[in-house]
Amino acid sequence: MSQTVTGFEVHDIRFPTSEQLDGSDAMNPDPDYSAAYVVLRTDDGAEGHGLCFTIGRGNDVTAAAIGALRPYVVGRPAPRTPADLAALSTELTHDSQLRWLGPEKGVMHMAAGAVINAAWDLAAKSAGRPVWEFLAAMTPEEIVSLVDFRYLTDALTPDEALDILRAAEPGRAERTARLRAEGYPAYTTSPGWLGYDDAKLVTLAEQAVADGFEQIKLKVGGDLDDDIRRMKLARAAVGPDIRIAVDANQRWDVSEALRWMSALAPYEPHWIEEPTSPDDILGHAAIRAGQPVKVATGEHVANRVVFKQLLQAGAVDYVQIDAARVAGVNENLAILLLAAKFGVPVCPHAGGVGLCELVQHLSMFDYIAVSGSLEGRVIEYVDHLHEHFADPAVVVSARYRAPSAPGFSARMLPESIAAHSYPDGPVWQARRTTEEAGA
Amino acid sequence: MSQTVTGFEVHDIRFPTSEQLDGSDAMNPDPDYSAAYVVLRTDDGAEGHGLCFTIGRGNDVTAAAIGALRPYVVGRPAPRTPADLAALSTELTHDSQLRWLGPEKGVMHMAAGAVINAAWDLAAKSAGRPVWEFLAAMTPEEIVSLVDFRYLTDALTPDEALDILRAAEPGRAERTARLRAEGYPAYTTSPGWLGYDDAKLVTLAEQAVADGFEQIKLKVGGDLDDDIRRMKLARAAVGPDIRIAVDANQRWDVSEALRWMSALAPYEPHWIEEPTSPDDILGHAAIRAGQPVKVATGEHVANRVVFKQLLQAGAVDYVQIDAARVAGVNENLAILLLAAKFGVPVCPHAGGVGLCELVQHLSMFDYIAVSGSLEGRVIEYVDHLHEHFADPAVVVSARYRAPSAPGFSARMLPESIAAHSYPDGPVWQARRTTEEAGA
Repeated sequence: MSQTVTGFEVHDIRFPTSEQLDGSDAMNPDPDYSAAYVVLRTDDGAEGHGLCFTIGRGNDVTAAAIGALRPYVVGRPAPRTPADLAALSTELTHDSQLRWLGPEKGVMHMAAGAVINAAWDLAAKSAGRPVWEFLAAMTPEEIVSLVDFRYLTDALTPDEALDILRAAEPGRAERTARLRAEGYPAYTTSPGWLGYDDAKLVTLAEQAVADGFEQIKLKVGGDLDDDIRRMKLARAAVGPDIRIAVDANQRWDVSEALRWMSALAPYEPHWIEEPTSPDDILGHAAIRAGQPVKVATGEHVANRVVFKQLLQAGAVDYVQIDAARVAGVNENLAILLLAAKFGVPVCPHAGGVGLCELVQHLSMFDYIAVSGSLEGRVIEYVDHLHEHFADPAVVVSARYRAPSAPGFSARMLPESIAAHSYPDGPVWQARRTTEEAGA
Repeated sequence: MSQTVTGFEVHDIRFPTSEQLDGSDAMNPDPDYSAAYVVLRTDDGAEGHGLCFTIGRGNDVTAAAIGALRPYVVGRPAPRTPADLAALSTELTHDSQLRWLGPEKGVMHMAAGAVINAAWDLAAKSAGRPVWEFLAAMTPEEIVSLVDFRYLTDALTPDEALDILRAAEPGRAERTARLRAEGYPAYTTSPGWLGYDDAKLVTLAEQAVADGFEQIKLKVGGDLDDDIRRMKLARAAVGPDIRIAVDANQRWDVSEALRWMSALAPYEPHWIEEPTSPDDILGHAAIRAGQPVKVATGEHVANRVVFKQLLQAGAVDYVQIDAARVAGVNENLAILLLAAKFGVPVCPHAGGVGLCELVQHLSMFDYIAVSGSLEGRVIEYVDHLHEHFADPAVVVSARYRAPSAPGFSARMLPESIAAHSYPDGPVWQARRTTEEAGA
């Protein structure tokens, strides 16, 4: 039975998270976690859901960019096969006029990612499988056909990608069984937001260990003395065996990163995340070479071309993919394959709105069919806003459970969408009323 | 007298250039040259004009991004001084929530550039000077204060920038006089669009030489045999002493660029422009090292951080700034200073809609106050769409005349804006009527 896309809804959804300083860091002091959210509807009643994560202002611009993609989807057959999904990805990322707005970066590229991910949600639901399983059931040839190798072949050719995938084929069934039984390791960022006071940091760090987490993360980069104090407190709270990653959210120039991390190194941070501009490949390489702490980045890396160079330059120890920054599943497949080629573990960025829900599928697929390993790998987990999703990410004993519902786990509850629609949803109307009363 | 910004208009303006294949190249077969255009109005009747250049679809998204910046400008004093202009640039590019949409790249960054450039237009008009002269009248300290050095200090510190500017101070008056008398060298891309047939190519190439141009540019990258034939025709038409640059518009992977340019090298192309992804710093470095033709890029380089690395990696022989891709005058000052630090000539990208008008000011300022040189430097010139501007770029005997009207030469004629407004201006209404009649 064919299925035609007949509906395309875009929502500007914002959560007033700045009220509690959830998500606060050295570069983002007061984020209102938001999603430009797209729903594809088909003539047989199916739905595909996708989103761009933003932190407030400008979410309307991202929603407008998603809206510009409507003609590429509506009135056409819903993508179902790898060939369909490859064609959609190519069309959205290589449309010659839209491409000028990036190319392959920023608002327009994120919007393409939201629509591509919504199409994957739809296709996986048609197949009756969660996205991780839908992907893991594909042949190496099908997986390679989904990837855009343009600008990658000096680092990774289609044949090399095939070799990587074929090498991982024998263990797929065993790893799938293990994943279903044991889940995928998670770490938590909940204790570490920069806006939290010391007492809250310590309480949440202790709670994380009690919950079974073996890694937590602290935001750094505001003030070095504060960071040293917080690092000491966290180390005392969790003990010597728990990994403490730190995250500067792009706060530093190269020399500042070297100075700061040399000062924090005695407290043994597990990695320094986003020490500088996500565009600064050579800067990351210099930081990795110039101080002892391992380097991670990726949540703001615009596309596969920049990831390719971070790997070529030996600039990162951990690749942090983000499900909603690049052009969807297809581009993340390229990045997973690049990381496997260079032998660098993928530890996704998550949190935000729906990012845990989405990215778990990619790491689980990576484990089954690409890297074949959990060694050094861990998915970020932040325990907020999951209640707005129909199939929320489930973390038990510090491990993501493998999703079983068909699709990409991206569906937000209708009442959450209605309540948080910006600017006219009741949450925002109430906030304006409060502000006016206070003014 | 203080001046307050009271009006902020955004226009979606598109020219149906795809009808003639003006602007066609290997990646952009049928562009409709467009501008998301902003007008700032003040309470004393002054106007500041700025724009993002796009090639059609998505121009509405860019217009929406400009619209999101309205609250940062309206109801505030119009920027006049270097300090005002630095503060506006910082606010627009470092707003913590909007920054998430890049950071510093793509639609949101281009929109910031349009508004920043409109503010420069306004400030230069207040000072009664064209932007190039307004800039060239500033002290080295003022110029340095306009630059955001974040992420640059491993390559260029404020003190080094001051040294560069101070070293160029003694000759400013002499170079200004020479610029007014002789203009700034231009090259022409008009003969070389990929959609033009051989006869049109030859005719336009001969015309370019007759007009005094010492450099022309051909688009390449569609088909190697075609490119060799076109290169031979062009060389025969212009003779051995005219430089022929070639431009692949990001068409190739590294190995393809090496193969293609090795095949074209016998015809002595002056440079190969955009051989691969503008994000691929290491790729450009490999291409520069692996074949004999000089490498140029920049029109799609997202920001100063990527330019920094292109220079650090020795990846380019020519830096091609674009007036409307990065965050306006301020970020282009950073790029001019970086290029000067590394001793690499700046040869701007222009053409499009209003890009010649804008970027001439930056190269003229570079000559007077930064590099102090015309050696190896040339501004692109494309002879179309200038008739829509109130102070069009004037090229006589293959040299840009120094603009004399106050401001940034960015004002489009009201009748041009009205005629080409999308989708409801008469040009687009007529086109729809024609299409419907033909369908």
